[in-house]
Amino acid sequence: MYGGNAMKVRVSLVQMSGFWEKEKTIEKMIEKVDEACKSNLDFVVLPEMWNCPYGTKYFREYGEVCTLEDSVTLKAMSDIAKKNKIYLFGGSIAELDGDKVYNTCFVFDREGNIIAKHRKHHLFDVDIKGGMKFKESDVLSAGDRLTTVDTEFGKVGVMICFDLRFGRDFYELNKNGDIGMFVIPAAFNMTTGPRHWELLLRARAVDNQAYILACAPAQDENAPYKAFGHSTIINPWGDIIEMAEFDEIVINREIDLDIINESRTQIPVNTIM
Amino acid sequence: MYGGNAMKVRVSLVQMSGFWEKEKTIEKMIEKVDEACKSNLDFVVLPEMWNCPYGTKYFREYGEVCTLEDSVTLKAMSDIAKKNKIYLFGGSIAELDGDKVYNTCFVFDREGNIIAKHRKHHLFDVDIKGGMKFKESDVLSAGDRLTTVDTEFGKVGVMICFDLRFGRDFYELNKNGDIGMFVIPAAFNMTTGPRHWELLLRARAVDNQAYILACAPAQDENAPYKAFGHSTIINPWGDIIEMAEFDEIVINREIDLDIINESRTQIPVNTIM
Repeated sequence: MYGGNAMKVRVSLVQMSGFWEKEKTIEKMIEKVDEACKSNLDFVVLPEMWNCPYGTKYFREYGEVCTLEDSVTLKAMSDIAKKNKIYLFGGSIAELDGDKVYNTCFVFDREGNIIAKHRKHHLFDVDIKGGMKFKESDVLSAGDRLTTVDTEFGKVGVMICFDLRFGRDFYELNKNGDIGMFVIPAAFNMTTGPRHWELLLRARAVDNQAYILACAPAQDENAPYKAFGHSTIINPWGDIIEMAEFDEIVINREIDLDIINESRTQIPVNTIM
Repeated sequence: MYGGNAMKVRVSLVQMSGFWEKEKTIEKMIEKVDEACKSNLDFVVLPEMWNCPYGTKYFREYGEVCTLEDSVTLKAMSDIAKKNKIYLFGGSIAELDGDKVYNTCFVFDREGNIIAKHRKHHLFDVDIKGGMKFKESDVLSAGDRLTTVDTEFGKVGVMICFDLRFGRDFYELNKNGDIGMFVIPAAFNMTTGPRHWELLLRARAVDNQAYILACAPAQDENAPYKAFGHSTIINPWGDIIEMAEFDEIVINREIDLDIINESRTQIPVNTIM
């Protein structure tokens, strides 16, 4: 049986866009999270690369050495998590480590401590005829491991964007059937979004009989990268519980973890092992 | 690179329903396949349990000891494959072996030889609140292995119905990236069909960057089991190329194997390993 204790989780997806000035974006994040937390939350999720324009030429410039002492962005996320007593899944930011740059999700507990970090494991290198071309590996390095976070709601898997295409990693993470939720900061685009975003999110939910909490940047006409938006919550049956459109929006929702065991009992596909 | 030689395959899905009298159903299958083959085909796919009412109490009664000498159904499939010079993926039938009964797909080459058999690996045991309840394992035994078939179009994976829910088996079969097509006889129902049929088929196509050829029985108001129909061809991008509705229909279609390598090159997700 899935091992979460508290059976309801109040989650929030903050679908926002940023500014060219990082400090303004951080201020905006703080306002958005504070506003969301008026309704008493457990998990707040930010988008992929939320404090940085999405493009290989920006990652190093906007990157930070990621300690709480050195990083203004980490400090802001830690403070806001502590202030609102939330788990903050900090989307992702560009992490500088020596001469390397990673696309990294930091996770904070209710006291503002960093309890996990996930470095994007599969870099976004695609060249789609007539559509998106992007090569993260020109600048970024790939993380070398899969990531989970322990919470009082059970174990949570963390993936970033292109990681979503690697269903075998989800199976690997969930091989003991102890993951009931996956948090996925992402930034699909106008080529891959309409084609595969909903399909892949729903498939990961059904294959793992787990909740999917996927948070994307809002689309910004002035940004160099046209994000698809469509932040989404999906339940373990694969049903879409909430789905944003392109614009900025904060989705607050209570989810019921009983549905994890319900789906696993009614259609046993060895998620419980 | 995916290793098929001939780059176009002419495939046919025979979405049919059966009769209580097996001999009549076999006659119908022969007519349908002969009719389909007027347009010159390479692969013909039949539905799951096409010669048997779908229900645990019928499997043993309709089952056959599966040698070409003992089985009227195998003999008919072999003859029709040879006559029309096609690969016949014979949906599935109830296979008697000692005191065991399997749900088995036999595959025939263009000379009518049996070149593979897949015994359904994951039995359909579900109990969905307010919906379908079924327990194949009351009567059936599960196959103990995964199955591929070698053809001049490359290697083909064979799965049956509930096997579709086990994406990890698809990954296992395709770990060398040498499978460009999966053939899946299936019989989803009015609970699981609307919920998950299209989702799972499209997800397996995208995750494996492979064609999916899924053939289901037509819905029959007089049958004990209300099949969902909706036989489907999906390309490696996850696009639905053809999808039937509930009624009997034969879908003939030429598919282009170049799209396998196209999708794998444009979105590399380690399908080529």
